[in-house]
Parts: sequence; structure tokens; C-alpha cells
Amino acid sequence: MIATWLENQRLSIRKIHLPTVPSGEALIKVRLSGICGTDLELVRGYYPFTGIPGHEFVGEVVEAPEKDWVGQRVVGEINAACGECEQCRNRRPTHCEQRTVLGIAGRNGVHAEYFSLPLANLHRVPGTLPDEAAVFTEPLAAALEIQEQVHFQPTDRVLLVGAGRLGQLIARTLFLTGCDLRVVARHAHQQALLERLKIRLIGEDQILPRHWDVVVEATGSGSGFDLARRALRPRGTLVLKSTYKGEMTINWSPFVVDEMTIIGSRCGPFAPALRLLERGQVDPTDLIAAKYSLDKAPGAFREAGKAGTLKVLLEP
Amino acid sequence: MIATWLENQRLSIRKIHLPTVPSGEALIKVRLSGICGTDLELVRGYYPFTGIPGHEFVGEVVEAPEKDWVGQRVVGEINAACGECEQCRNRRPTHCEQRTVLGIAGRNGVHAEYFSLPLANLHRVPGTLPDEAAVFTEPLAAALEIQEQVHFQPTDRVLLVGAGRLGQLIARTLFLTGCDLRVVARHAHQQALLERLKIRLIGEDQILPRHWDVVVEATGSGSGFDLARRALRPRGTLVLKSTYKGEMTINWSPFVVDEMTIIGSRCGPFAPALRLLERGQVDPTDLIAAKYSLDKAPGAFREAGKAGTLKVLLEP
Repeated sequence: MIATWLENQRLSIRKIHLPTVPSGEALIKVRLSGICGTDLELVRGYYPFTGIPGHEFVGEVVEAPEKDWVGQRVVGEINAACGECEQCRNRRPTHCEQRTVLGIAGRNGVHAEYFSLPLANLHRVPGTLPDEAAVFTEPLAAALEIQEQVHFQPTDRVLLVGAGRLGQLIARTLFLTGCDLRVVARHAHQQALLERLKIRLIGEDQILPRHWDVVVEATGSGSGFDLARRALRPRGTLVLKSTYKGEMTINWSPFVVDEMTIIGSRCGPFAPALRLLERGQVDPTDLIAAKYSLDKAPGAFREAGKAGTLKVLLEP
Repeated sequence: MIATWLENQRLSIRKIHLPTVPSGEALIKVRLSGICGTDLELVRGYYPFTGIPGHEFVGEVVEAPEKDWVGQRVVGEINAACGECEQCRNRRPTHCEQRTVLGIAGRNGVHAEYFSLPLANLHRVPGTLPDEAAVFTEPLAAALEIQEQVHFQPTDRVLLVGAGRLGQLIARTLFLTGCDLRVVARHAHQQALLERLKIRLIGEDQILPRHWDVVVEATGSGSGFDLARRALRPRGTLVLKSTYKGEMTINWSPFVVDEMTIIGSRCGPFAPALRLLERGQVDPTDLIAAKYSLDKAPGAFREAGKAGTLKVLLEP
């Protein structure tokens, strides 16, 4: 099959054997895959990974231990859990201590013609949902994780810092809560997408300090963190929805005096993400910047890596 | 009157005029005051303050705009709020943007014969409660603030790092929740006090990493923070119950990947603290290390500043 291959921060196209499918797993033919910020960070060497990257996909099951899965169109959760460790037993499978993570850690990913994933990770895609929407299930689930963790009151003043690939989806999910949401979007086309949905923007110089009940930081930059921190009211909650390169210096004393909460947020629930997509409550297809054929993946990654680019898809 | 006076990191005894009492405030005669870690930090110059330090007290109202307060034995909340700013209007008076703080910021404190405080801050002390217990109301309320902020399930594994003045009170309040509590206590006499109450200790080398549902950090040291951080399970909650001197370097990425929560915690509710004291559910009097007369305050501060010393009281 054709597959991307990442090794020593170099992404190439290779012709390799079909994956061997471990017990309990399905072989899946990729219909579309999406390039995520994490994929770009793998290529930049922020995390060590050698193999096939990619974890956002919609595909079709071609082999499975349970035959009724064969032929199904599916999306899938990216953490493959052991089911037996303390985290798994306490219903935190995304935090399994022995987990492999699709295209990120210990498991080949989806920027390929085929890959395998445990049946337990798969979700059927409703027939009415086009591939171009279903491929956003994973990042939309990650956006919903914020609401799994933090209670958003309809009266809350909420500031979202960052309106890139993930920020756009976060904006659309938080918008549904009825909260008083404002978004800091740097690029004109990011702003235009939000304005079309009546999601309100705010300029950095208009942000009242110590004012916002919840601030979601989705830039992954030190300047975004500082902006978010300053905007938060006493006893407010700061959600970190990005990983940060390197270390940051922080003075905890004002944080304690102001009794603030900081919460890290990662992978989220697929079932409600599929519900929002199926019902049309979130339509992510306007975020598609480009679609490349899989054998053009290196060029697709270059485009996805440009500042402000939204979703670039790969089609095998 | 006799009062302590802090200026340029020097604590002295002065003879000064009785305080003039602002409108809406009561004049209070101190019966006992307690030396807190924050008092020691003020003397060390960690925060700028000139005037009379001290915020833990039990006293008697000698003048008040409402006459039924006169003669009452009282304790009092230390943040004097404006009642009109956004924080006050949103029922966060301890975060009032214009607040003065008794013996800490903009308001003379209680290591003196007399001081003044708004009537709104006062709580009557039940007649059965001795001064030596009532003087712990403020730090016990600060301990209870943790339970105002974090839901402790009876099944939670809870680690408390630090068993000093405040840690001892936190241990006693968390113990009441039925949770599986272990305490890291450095000094033998701190350990003995906890063991007498059947509160279980744990050695630093016995602490399982990534295991504890909630970790409370009450040492205010970088090493305590690191220990607490490592002990926390994925999706766990780290409570910062101390201020930290200077800045700390932190790598947020594992924090985001593990979806941890950090929450700062400061002043707490007086009414439940008085309930616990009155009912005898928390008896803090075994924490009293020494009682000095007010005119010996500099010596009392020196004793309170020795590593491991618990509560030193001043009596005017």
C-alpha cells in the first residue's frame, strides 16, 4: 500500500506491506484523513515518533473479528487502551498507562491506505453524514472534552484565545451553550468564518483584564497563555487546550491569591461529536482549506504548516 | 495602646494612640492573636507592608454602630470589601478589587491591644468555645476553603504534603470526609499530633506516583510542589494552599496530556469553621506551641519562625 512515513523529522511517501492486524482489531481502508497540529509537531520533532503519522480519519472496515463491522463506515478513538491498568479500571481509558496512540505513540496512523485499530475504538458514521464532515469527529470530540471537564453556565463570560484548526471547533461548541462568548482570531479568514456564524470576535486590546469566568487557551503559545491568564477573573477557570513547547516561568502567588483554576484538556468523547455533526449543529466543512491525494502528502503538510491554515485533508 | 509595628522588615513594640474607628466598623479589644506563616513572610519582606501585622484573633467588641454587638466575643473575616465592585456584586467579597486585608494590606492588624474591623466581617463566638480554640477560626476557615472548591469523594485517595500550622488543620478537616488520607509530615512532633488522631502518615519514598485523586500542597516550597505534581493521577486535582516565593519553571505539556487541574486556595468560610470548633469535631488547641505576652512579640515571632514550630499566640 501507499503510506506516509516519518523518520528523523522527514516525511516521505513509501510503498509498504499491508499492516498485520492484531487480535481484536479491524483493518480499515482510509477514505479521508485530516492533518492535525500534532502531526505537524511530530514532523518538527517535538515528540519522538517513527512510522506512519495521522489520527483523524473516516474509513471503511475491510476486515474485523466481528463480521457485522465489515463494510461499515467508521471513525475511531485514537487511544488504544489495555483495559486492565488502574486508569482503565477507573474508566479513564484515554489515560491508560500502557496505551498506544494512533499515529502518535507506538502505533502506525492513518495517513496511509490502510491501518488497524481495536474494534472497541470504532464508531459507526451515520449514513447521512458526508466523509468531509465525519473526518472532523476526532477534533470535535477534543473540543467537547472541555465541556466534559468544565461546567459552562449560560450566563458565563467566556473568552477563547485562538481560532485555528481546533479553536474554530471549540468556538462552535461553546457557542451552543448560550454563554457570552468572544474569540480572539488573528487571521482575517479565521475571523470571517466566525462572523458568518454570528460568533463574536474581540480585539486583544479590548479584552478587560480580570473579567472572564472561563478562558480557553488554544494557541499553544506563551503570549496566548499570558493573555488568557490576565483576562481571567478571580476564581475563574483557565483551560489549556494546547500543548506547549518547552518550559514556561510562572509566579504561583497571584494565582493562589486569586484562587484560579487551570485545567489541561486533551481527547474527548466521540458519541456527542457525531450527534452534533449528524444534526448539523456543527458544520465543520467550511474549515477545509485543501484536499490532496495521499501521494502528495509532503506538499499537503507544507501547506498545513503555514500560519493560519485551517484543515488540510488527504485522500488515498 | 501597646502594639507591634512592622517597618522595613523590623518588628518592634510601640505605644500608640487607639485606632480611630471608620463608619460601619467596630473597635475590638484583642483577647488572643495567632502568628501565621503570612505574618512571618511580611517580616521577611515577601510582601510590602508597614503597620501592625496580624489577622488571626479572638476579641471583644468595645464600640460598634449597632449596640447589641458591644460586649460580644468575636472572630472576624480578614478581607474588608467595598460591596460595590464586580467581585463583590458577584458574591466574591474575599476577591474585592478594593479590599483591605487585616494586618496584610492597607489595614492595621491584630497583634495589638485594639483594632477595628467592619461589623459585616464579625462572627459571634459560641459561649462554650474557649479563646484558645476560637483563635484558630481563621486558619480553620482557610482549610475548609479547599472543600468549598473541590468535591472530595469518600472513596478518594488524598495526599496532603505538609503538616505545619495550616497543614495540621487541613489534615483534620479532610479526615472528616472519610477519604483515604495520607499526610507527609517532616517533623516528629507534627507526626505525633496526627498519629494521636489516627490520621495516617506516609513517607516520601512510599508515595506511589500518578496515583492520588487529590493532592494538597501546603508547604509552599518548590520541592513540595514537585512531590505533589508527581503523585497526582491523570485527571487529578492539585490544590495549592500556600503562596510560593519567586517564580517556578513548569512544562505544561505533560500537565495537558494528563488533563490535570491545579487550583489555588486562600481564605475560607467562617461559619462552618465555628461549627466544627463548637461541636469539638476539630480541636486545634494541641497545636499551640507557646503563648507570649504582646510586649514580647519580637521573641514570639522568632520562635514562630523556627522550622516546624506550630502556633504561637500573643496575649495583650
